[in-house]
Amino acid sequence: MALGDPIQRLIRELGKLPGIGQKTATRLAFHVLRSPAEQARDLAQAVLEVKDKIRLCSVCMSLTEHDPCELCADPSRDAALLCVVAQPPDLLAVERTGSYRGRYHVLHGVLSPLEGVGPDDLRLRELLLRLQGQQDSSKDAAQAAPAAATPIREVIVATSPNVEGEATALYIARMLKPLGVQVTRIASGLPIGGDLEYADGVTIARALEVRREM
Amino acid sequence: MALGDPIQRLIRELGKLPGIGQKTATRLAFHVLRSPAEQARDLAQAVLEVKDKIRLCSVCMSLTEHDPCELCADPSRDAALLCVVAQPPDLLAVERTGSYRGRYHVLHGVLSPLEGVGPDDLRLRELLLRLQGQQDSSKDAAQAAPAAATPIREVIVATSPNVEGEATALYIARMLKPLGVQVTRIASGLPIGGDLEYADGVTIARALEVRREM
Repeated sequence: MALGDPIQRLIRELGKLPGIGQKTATRLAFHVLRSPAEQARDLAQAVLEVKDKIRLCSVCMSLTEHDPCELCADPSRDAALLCVVAQPPDLLAVERTGSYRGRYHVLHGVLSPLEGVGPDDLRLRELLLRLQGQQDSSKDAAQAAPAAATPIREVIVATSPNVEGEATALYIARMLKPLGVQVTRIASGLPIGGDLEYADGVTIARALEVRREM
Repeated sequence: MALGDPIQRLIRELGKLPGIGQKTATRLAFHVLRSPAEQARDLAQAVLEVKDKIRLCSVCMSLTEHDPCELCADPSRDAALLCVVAQPPDLLAVERTGSYRGRYHVLHGVLSPLEGVGPDDLRLRELLLRLQGQQDSSKDAAQAAPAAATPIREVIVATSPNVEGEATALYIARMLKPLGVQVTRIASGLPIGGDLEYADGVTIARALEVRREM
């Protein structure tokens, strides 16, 4: 093949990544070729390690190198507050805001009957157990996760404000109701810095509906 | 760090690639994490090999695993025709058309006084030597590259039709004039399938200027 097999092979491998077409893969491959050997080695190493070392945290179901994960093990985080997200990247998005200091629970999906995703396919059972565990903490404190030593006061459901996300949020609210824990939902409305003129009608309607007194 | 260091490290390494921002890097990293271990290994391997095994072809200055490269070593390709391109990806673009069966010469850049790229920074000397070598083939045939056994009849300058590309083409035409070799330039005009209505004025003007009889 023209330019030698290793380049073609790298272009092919990069082209398997989502959203990376032939042209982008070619551009990236030549960038790797021109970049220092050390940087290429770091990239290859990072690809291998991510497959090798990442597992699920047994407490929050997030991805982690060490179990329990750093967020669950961090005593400075508020263990009374639990933010439920659909996927690990959502957790990262919340973390990046720097304004949340509680714990997390990762569902690894949202309810989607059309795609055959039911409650049993999500980490809902683990969420329920996590909250149930604290109720009878007197008898089996050893069995409960260490993070659950402080009782969870509020569960914030931070699934996306779309059909599946809303359905999942509703399901969680109903599931947790018997436990008497407070379940809240992240707000939806116009994005900060957004323009009313260009916002979609559904978002504007929702923003009007859930308006707040000033 | 949230989600464990290996993921953050992969996101960081992917984010160093051109045109890959934080969000895309995150998406790619999670794709790698979800994909089969074998695919991740192939990707890592391809990254390492491309740095390890790729060198310049001593004949055409293209990138190759074996020297001379497959294109220079292929006896079925027309050695009398030489296509000069700026960079290896340009060679790939010409190869993909499947309509060119001659040889190549890669300049590794274009003349750009503003960015401090002069003739000595490009592989122009090698191009000149390649064409000069065939002139006195009687005395030092051993010194000339094997591909130059057939005299080069025509040099097609396939640099991009922009300011730097045109300047480089002009420089090459002047440089090769004393050798008596035919130097041609790829055509510019409206792209096939393009729409006259949406084409830029400069392209339309050029297409009118270099119009051909039907």
